Amino acid sequence: MTTELSSLFGYPAAFLTTIAFVPQAWQSWRTRDLSGISLPMYTLFTLGVAFWLGYGIVIGSLPVIAANTITLLLASVVLCLKIIETRRRYLLRKIEPPT
Amino acid sequence: MTTELSSLFGYPAAFLTTIAFVPQAWQSWRTRDLSGISLPMYTLFTLGVAFWLGYGIVIGSLPVIAANTITLLLASVVLCLKIIETRRRYLLRKIEPPT
Repeated sequence: MTTELSSLFGYPAAFLTTIAFVPQAWQSWRTRDLSGISLPMYTLFTLGVAFWLGYGIVIGSLPVIAANTITLLLASVVLCLKIIETRRRYLLRKIEPPT
Repeated sequence: MTTELSSLFGYPAAFLTTIAFVPQAWQSWRTRDLSGISLPMYTLFTLGVAFWLGYGIVIGSLPVIAANTITLLLASVVLCLKIIETRRRYLLRKIEPPT
């Protein structure tokens, strides 16, 4: 009973928190608007998901491995775009100092 | 051995993916810059975390409950700010139609 009930919560939970990063990665890729995105958030989050992937490998859970591989890829896209944007802004500020 | 190794991955994973939302919620609250944030992402993600919280309650796991309560609060802050911004933009477009 508890196992059935836990599946009723666990599967939608894993599905939703994994696919959630699809619209974010797509929006960031398409618009290249990263201004509201926090660099520390995506750094910590991507690292955390990599640890979850390691956890899945250690316990030998295919759903944990699959979900975190997808999330890792999507979060990495947003993180890379944010790093590129942050670097670009930094270089622009160096060329054109504020008056 | 596997349990020890899994803890070595599991605890940093849970810690990192939970605290990751602190800098995002703080940045969004402070700057009110939500332009790069995906509304579908935060809708799906917040719902997913609520399911994870339900999962934690069902299996009676205090770490799962604690981590997901914190993430739920932080993700909800970003989601609410994004909804407010989206609504404001919509109303502004209605008042001032593009020429």
